[in-house]
Amino acid sequence: MSGPEHRPGARRRLSVDERRDELLRVGMELFSERSYDDVWVEEIAERAGISRGLLYHYFPTKRDFYVAVTRAAAAEVGELTAQAGSLPPAERLRRGIDEYLRYAEAHPHGFLTAYRGSLAGDAEVRATVEEGRRRQATRILEVLCGDREPGAVLALAVYGWTAMAQAVTAEWLALREPRREVVRDLLLDALAGTIRAARDTSTAHLGAP
Amino acid sequence: MSGPEHRPGARRRLSVDERRDELLRVGMELFSERSYDDVWVEEIAERAGISRGLLYHYFPTKRDFYVAVTRAAAAEVGELTAQAGSLPPAERLRRGIDEYLRYAEAHPHGFLTAYRGSLAGDAEVRATVEEGRRRQATRILEVLCGDREPGAVLALAVYGWTAMAQAVTAEWLALREPRREVVRDLLLDALAGTIRAARDTSTAHLGAP
Repeated sequence: MSGPEHRPGARRRLSVDERRDELLRVGMELFSERSYDDVWVEEIAERAGISRGLLYHYFPTKRDFYVAVTRAAAAEVGELTAQAGSLPPAERLRRGIDEYLRYAEAHPHGFLTAYRGSLAGDAEVRATVEEGRRRQATRILEVLCGDREPGAVLALAVYGWTAMAQAVTAEWLALREPRREVVRDLLLDALAGTIRAARDTSTAHLGAP
Repeated sequence: MSGPEHRPGARRRLSVDERRDELLRVGMELFSERSYDDVWVEEIAERAGISRGLLYHYFPTKRDFYVAVTRAAAAEVGELTAQAGSLPPAERLRRGIDEYLRYAEAHPHGFLTAYRGSLAGDAEVRATVEEGRRRQATRILEVLCGDREPGAVLALAVYGWTAMAQAVTAEWLALREPRREVVRDLLLDALAGTIRAARDTSTAHLGAP
């Protein structure tokens, strides 16, 4: 903390938790703008107004930093898409998908790194992405079933749809088309079709929806 | 080739390509039965009836061997699901999904390693899985559109469905339920729902299906 400091941010005295949160915020900005390999550790430290040594104190490697940023982003997406609890089910699902796609559009490189980029194979990144999908599936099943236990086929189908939503989002961010509203309506309609498929399949094979 | 040989397989004189194919066949068997970490290099050599040294000549590491086995399996799945060209479209899709699920059921550990296991993060394994999905999407679009160019929304939707098919298959293999026929009908109905969603979304937003 005694080295030369050039940026105003550095003069602020922050608690360990505040500093960590600020670093994660800087990471979300940087990894949203550019791909993982194009972000330099020096730049992270500079933008946060701290020394490289202090950054390493919080995050020993760039990969550790990226994993923490991905976790923080996944938590943020989770909170965003949890809103709107008082609306009718269809509208809640629509809002949830819309918020997810807006967030992805605002952080394209962050999503692409986690889904397809150089760290997409990292075990912790994969676990974070998988947890996010499981949470999304649980939330959709709550909207659909409330307190009732969802059937195994419906649970499998909705889990499958979260993989579709992720793949479609990554492909959309990479291709930069079609418009977000088109992707949103496609995912929403495909979810409705998947739910119908689960009910029809359950009825046909198991005699119960 | 001059060391002590204990198994009949070793006495056969095979060309380099034949030996490689035999090793891949042994790999498919072993990786189908057990997870990647539970298969030992010694066992691969023993079952193929060759020395460990000769195995290393073909595949320098266990990971290299696994990657080659995964590629061979992906090609095999690709050929299997390409059959039945003379049937009506709906029946071709149904057969394709059924073949895919039968293959997965016969090679559960192989699929789970590639989709979720210790090598699921490996860049080459991920590329092989991704190629398989792209090939699957292309084939479905050919069944649906023939020589006509599919619209961007339909292509995006079908690509998304291949991610659903993969996630549902992995979850099914891990949970060991429901029955294969249930999973097949779920995936087929969900594909129909996804195609309808793509057409409705295209018509609503772009004025053309």
